[in-house]
Order: sequence, then C-alpha cells, then structure tokens
Amino acid sequence: MGLNTAPPSGTRDFLPDELAKRRFVEKAIRRVYESFGFVAIETPAMENLSTLLGKYGEEGDQLLFRILHRREKLSRAIQGSTIAEKDLSDIGLRYDLTVPLARVMANAKNLPRFFKRYQIQPVWRADHPGKGRYREFLQCDVDITGTDSLVAEAEVCTAVAMVFEELGFREFSIHLNHRRLLNCIIRAAGLPPDQEETALVAVDKMDKVGEEGVRKDLAQRGISTVAADALLCFIRRPGDLSEIGELDRMAALLENFPEAAAPLAELRELIEILSGTSICKYVRIDATLARGLGYYTGPIFEVRTPSQSGSLGGGGRYDGLIGMFKGTPIPAVGFSIGFERLILIMEDRKLFGTLSLGPDLLLCRFPDVKAADALRTAEFLRVQGLKVEVFPETPKIGKQLAYAESIKVPIAAILGGSEFQHGKLSIKNLATSEQLTMPVSEAATRIGEWLENTERKGIRN
Amino acid sequence: MGLNTAPPSGTRDFLPDELAKRRFVEKAIRRVYESFGFVAIETPAMENLSTLLGKYGEEGDQLLFRILHRREKLSRAIQGSTIAEKDLSDIGLRYDLTVPLARVMANAKNLPRFFKRYQIQPVWRADHPGKGRYREFLQCDVDITGTDSLVAEAEVCTAVAMVFEELGFREFSIHLNHRRLLNCIIRAAGLPPDQEETALVAVDKMDKVGEEGVRKDLAQRGISTVAADALLCFIRRPGDLSEIGELDRMAALLENFPEAAAPLAELRELIEILSGTSICKYVRIDATLARGLGYYTGPIFEVRTPSQSGSLGGGGRYDGLIGMFKGTPIPAVGFSIGFERLILIMEDRKLFGTLSLGPDLLLCRFPDVKAADALRTAEFLRVQGLKVEVFPETPKIGKQLAYAESIKVPIAAILGGSEFQHGKLSIKNLATSEQLTMPVSEAATRIGEWLENTERKGIRN
Repeated sequence: MGLNTAPPSGTRDFLPDELAKRRFVEKAIRRVYESFGFVAIETPAMENLSTLLGKYGEEGDQLLFRILHRREKLSRAIQGSTIAEKDLSDIGLRYDLTVPLARVMANAKNLPRFFKRYQIQPVWRADHPGKGRYREFLQCDVDITGTDSLVAEAEVCTAVAMVFEELGFREFSIHLNHRRLLNCIIRAAGLPPDQEETALVAVDKMDKVGEEGVRKDLAQRGISTVAADALLCFIRRPGDLSEIGELDRMAALLENFPEAAAPLAELRELIEILSGTSICKYVRIDATLARGLGYYTGPIFEVRTPSQSGSLGGGGRYDGLIGMFKGTPIPAVGFSIGFERLILIMEDRKLFGTLSLGPDLLLCRFPDVKAADALRTAEFLRVQGLKVEVFPETPKIGKQLAYAESIKVPIAAILGGSEFQHGKLSIKNLATSEQLTMPVSEAATRIGEWLENTERKGIRN
Repeated sequence: MGLNTAPPSGTRDFLPDELAKRRFVEKAIRRVYESFGFVAIETPAMENLSTLLGKYGEEGDQLLFRILHRREKLSRAIQGSTIAEKDLSDIGLRYDLTVPLARVMANAKNLPRFFKRYQIQPVWRADHPGKGRYREFLQCDVDITGTDSLVAEAEVCTAVAMVFEELGFREFSIHLNHRRLLNCIIRAAGLPPDQEETALVAVDKMDKVGEEGVRKDLAQRGISTVAADALLCFIRRPGDLSEIGELDRMAALLENFPEAAAPLAELRELIEILSGTSICKYVRIDATLARGLGYYTGPIFEVRTPSQSGSLGGGGRYDGLIGMFKGTPIPAVGFSIGFERLILIMEDRKLFGTLSLGPDLLLCRFPDVKAADALRTAEFLRVQGLKVEVFPETPKIGKQLAYAESIKVPIAAILGGSEFQHGKLSIKNLATSEQLTMPVSEAATRIGEWLENTERKGIRN
C-alpha cells in the first residue's frame, strides 16, 4: 500500500518479548512498593493546559503535546484573523506524573493524611527522539506526602533500593546530598549568589565528566579559578571516610556557616535512621550530587550503578510543589525510577533470565481427531494450570510440530485417533526431543516436570 | 487558587480503591487469555493520522483527538491565508486497538503465523461525555489471526466465557449468529438489497427495545409491514428449540437460498466444536444478533447477562480488516470485552468481594523507640511477606491508632521502649480489638492468621 506502518517518530510498538520484560520489571516495582504500604493511582493521559502550562519552565511548555480543538471550537479558532497556538487547544498530554499528583491532591476527597502513592504510567514529551530518548515513555513515581519526618526519606530510599535488589542489582549506590547544604558549600567556596545556579549545573555533571570536566565548565561559566578550586576541594570526598566521617568533614569546613547546621543534622539523622535497614550499605554521602534546579528543598538522592554513567533514577524532598493547586503547603518526598534506562541496563547485564511467555504447550492433532476433542483436552490441561495453545488446523503433524518450534513453545502434545480413543496422548519435549505416550490424566504432571527443568536450564525465551 | 482541579471532561482519576477493582479485572483477563496461549502487545497512544483516518467512517474521524503541530510546523500552518484542520495536525490518539493491530501486522517482522494477541490499553474518543461514556476508556481486545478454522472462533468464545466465569458471573449467555446468514434472512423476508443495512440496524436493537420496538423502527425506516412481519417471524426463535434445532428451523426456512447453506454449516460446526468445552452451556443461537455494520464477515458473538440490556462485549470473524495495511488478506477472529461496563455491572452485583489494598499493618511507635528500630522491625515483617506502613512521626499512640482506623488498615503494631528492649511488640487486630504482646519473631505468624480471618470475614476495604 506504500503506507508508512512504523509507529510515529519517538514511539514504540511493544511486541510480546519486549513487553514481557517491561511487565516483569513493573510487577517487581509494584510488589516492592506495595510491601511498603504504597497504593497505586492512575490519572488521565490528558490534562487541561491550565494545569500543565508554566509548571516545567518555558522549554517544558514547548515540549507539551497539545490536543487540537474539534468541530465548532476549531472552526471559530481558524476563522480569526490572527491565530495563536493558545486558540487551537486547551488540553494536552501529561508531561510527568508529579503535576497530576498535585492536581489530584487538590481535587480528591478523603485522601489519607500521609498519602503514600505510586504511579506507573506513560508520559509524553515532544522532544527530538534519539537513542534512548522517546516521545512516549513510562514514568514510575513513588511519593510520600504530608510529613516532614525523615522517616519518609528513609522509607522511599529503602523501597527503591529493595526494587533494585529485587531486580537482581547487587552493585549500586544511593548517592545522598542535601539541597540546602549544597547551597552553603557554594557560598562557602566564595561564589556570589548570582553564580550559585550556574555552578550547580556544572557540579551536577561530576558523574559524567569528572573533576577536570567540571573545572573547565566552571571556568567557562565565568567562575574564578580560586572559587572553582575551593568548591572542588569542598565537594571532593577523601576515599577513606565513612558516611558520618564525610558529614564531619563538611561540618568542619562549614563551621562558619550556621545555615549548614540544619541540613547536616538532617543528613546525619537520615543516615542514623537508615542504619536500621539492610540497604544502608548502598548509601553514600555525595556533595557533588545536585539533581537539577529549583525543585528540591531538602535531602536529595540518586541511584547509580558502576560502569554506567548517569542514574537509574532520583528523587528527594520537594515541599513546595505538591500543594500548588491546593494552595496549602504539602511536604513531600519522592523518587522516580528511570524505567526505560533500567530496561536497557538490565538487558545489557542479562538480568532478565527466563521470562515465561506464550503457551507452555501446543496441542496438535491428526485429522481423525475431532476439534471438539482437542478443545476438551486443552480445557483439561488448562484446569491443571497449563497454558495451552490449540493448533487450529490439521495439516501434517510435521508441519504442526515445525510451527511449535517456530514459536519456541517448550512442549508439543499430539492427539492421534487410536491412542486418543484409549484416553492417551503423546507429549514431546522440544528441548530434549524426548517423546512419551501416556494417559491424558497423567500428562499434566509430566509436562509440569519438563517445564520446570526447561525453565531451570533457561531454554525458554 | 480558583483553578479547576477536576480531570478534563470525560476522563477520570482512578484513586486506589477504584484502581484496585480495575486491576483485579485486568489481572483475571490476562490470566485467562494467557492460559489459552494469547500473548500481550502494546502500541503507542499516538498514531499517524494517515493510519487512523478513514477507518472508522466519517463520524469516527470526527471523534479523533488530533495532536497540534509544534514550533516551525505550527508557525507555518497558522501563517497560511486559509487554514484547514489537516494543516494543523498529522498525529492523533488511537481510537481503538484494531487499527493499531493491523498496522503492527504490516510492520512487525517474524510474527507467528497464528498470532494470538491480546491488548489492554486505553483509547480516546472525542465523544460527548455522559453516564458510562468516557473520552478515555480501557479497551480489552483478544484476537487470533491467520486461520479460517472455526477452532479460532471456538477458542475465542471459550476464553471470553472463562473470563466471565473467573470474575464470578454464572448467568450469562454468548449469543451467536452469522453475518452472511443474517443477510440471507433479510433477503428471504422479501426486503430489497438497498434496505438490508437499515433493517440490520433496526434488528440489532431487539435486545434493547423488544419485538414491538423493532417492528415500529422497521416501519419508520420505510420497510413494508409484510416484509417486517416476515423478517420478525424468521428471526423469532421458538422457546423450546435446542441450538441445533434452531439451526434446523432456519435451514428449513431458507431452503430456497443456497447462500445460506455455508453459514448454517459453519454455525453447526462451531456448535459441534464448542460441545467439547464446558462453556457450551452458555452458547445461544440468536438470529436477531447483528453487531453493527460492515465489519464482520462470518460468525458473530456477543456476551449478555440477564437483567442488563446491552452487552458485556462482542466480536466475531472479520477477514477484511487486519490485512489492510499489509495489503494481503489476513483472516481474523476477535472479541472486545466492554471493560468499563463490566466494572459497573460487577460493582452492581457486588462481585468484587474483598480486595487487598494498602498495607496489612501500620507500625506505630512510642517516642522512645528510635526510627531506625522501627524500620528494622518493618523490614523484618516485610521479609515475612507482610505489607507494612511505618507511621512516620511520633505523636501520642492514640493519634497513631486513629490514623490506622482512618486508612482501614486491619492491624496495628506498636513498638514501646521497654517491651522493645525485650524484643517484643504489641499487635492489635483493629477488626476485633484483640491486642497481644509477643516477640517480634513470632508476630508475623499471628498477624498472618488474623489477616486470613479478616479477609474471610470480608472486613477489609
């Protein structure tokens, strides 16, 4: 037909193999978050533009997908003598899950005082698509609202670390810093207030470009060599310090900055709280961590794995945002797992193992067996817990078995006339080529054993 | 702030209670479909308009949500002297899951010859919102492509019936008709070919308006009383006939219509195949079933429950559609469950029972217990399989317990200084007010017993 049948630029079709991986990860996240008492919500793909606009900065507004007016509203709009973007649309696709949460917090009745919610849904951004950058991608947020207690930070960090452990990660770290501490350090290094933000942007790249890279960047941003050296010296952590040791080091450096006392005390308390959990071994105080601009108000964290620059997700306390629609401040701590990146890294590290996908068994039959009898047998096997596909036609058995191989089903069963009249069927283990004929009533057990072995050997897709 | 914080018209926020029901149903559908060897795919929310337009008729095109162009493309569009809708957008939100499947069938490599796919994702239609009619709603499709065999129809009907059984439905029926048989009946009743379509529309309402309603509607559509009477007589099924008996009755009525032989034989064979399954008791030959226009080419089916007009979903064979982008005919049989309607009816009939939602236990503590110890205890209980929320602050225990009541958690645990030093905690069953103090190491077992009883009594949620 000549029609382009690829999905729109920056979006993807997920075929069964790929989707199985995504669902595996999503299920693990749900399971862990629910074990911490988090509950799921979902919000619509569309939000009113009055809700979305101005929340992500000017660049963010540009990345919104807007929905075109329809019918009369559209006609009126395009009949005007001058037409602006705002005349053509009043709803758009959500850009993240935080603004929708803030809207729900203002709109919903009777939410618990501590609302522990998670939300796993796609978001849309009209960005230039590129490797690993999509226009539709899954976000995966977890938040605790309503408390200033550092127990919230500790629970969020613990839950997130448990997710990565559950997914098979063993070497990862939770980098921990405090937004207000970082501001003190920048001032202590002698930077003027108007250079704070630009210095933060430079420091935030430490993970990717290293100390020399940051030094160059700071120079390019017009920051004096003296101030840059002081800053780098302040944030450079000696290798042999414990977490508390690093906090002590910063406390000594910042003893003339009384504003540093509170954030240092908070980090100290958070480390103390986390010492009660098995995940505290992953936590690392890291004064270089900045996590973007403006948004955060307290402790900030980011999960990283060695040999991969960039993060697996991040979060922190952001007390100013969630109450914006309600008009009252609502303290909040959240974390967003970088779902798409996580999938790529897990593929890279072969962390997916054997995902059960598709039927356990393909039921074939000779033409002398009625379809009704095939369906009866399939139902019997399904009741025993097996996933059974029935080959719908009756070409030669060789063709049916070739199909079984092609879809990588681990086992085929064959119904043949005379055997079937004696209540028997043949089963064939396609991994080992073992073939047995046995009563239908006993077959499920043997098939179950075969499946267990096949799965253990990792032959199944 | 005066801002409207409701979700956009025709869309909904799903809070945890509501979402738990939806996930319960979705999981049941996935479980059953997968037991039949169906595999899941997902496609993007957006499709190119070249894919979507013209597939749903003119009315459908009007209901598409179109995405507004951005940046230069938008500027160019609105600078033109005359502007049309088509200049402003080239992608839109998907309207259904069938056109995306057809696109995937043309685009994907190496799909199995019999592609048994299911897909559960939202679709968007710019319809006038109303009770039970939304602009964003979940569709839930299952299809077998690539075979003419009636085993496909039988498997789809069986899988769908199993879903409804799994969800607790006991009284429902699968109405079964054949598209080409219906055409024969209409001609046999003496209607001219140009009245066939309008007659089909009238007949399709039998379920909702009854025979008298259809008679009136036929008259209004300009169909003669004689033809209408003949038609109603043909499709009126005597109460005492079996399924095969009803097919015999129609065969006798249509013996002068050789085109009726093939569809009658197909229905007969389908009934025969289904007789091998436990769901054949739900199947009912129903000559009044029409299922819309044009789309279907063979057997059609619809699931209904008594005391509810309208259907829980429907489907059939549609051999012309799935191959449209590939340019080769691909036979297909599918069924779409009316997910939103299903949820409403299940709520109505109280089929949801007790859905586990939120934590099993709220962990409270006196101020003399460290947060680190609370988190250590929470982790211990989680490892035992419990879902544990930690109360993040330390107001008076009465306040903490009041919160436990307010979030309807079934059990509270309290850590108090001296007890805790002896390795003990107090647990309180909030349903029965029973309270016990015991070693932490034994608490999980007792809590598990309490939960089992609470769930059995249906107190939760």
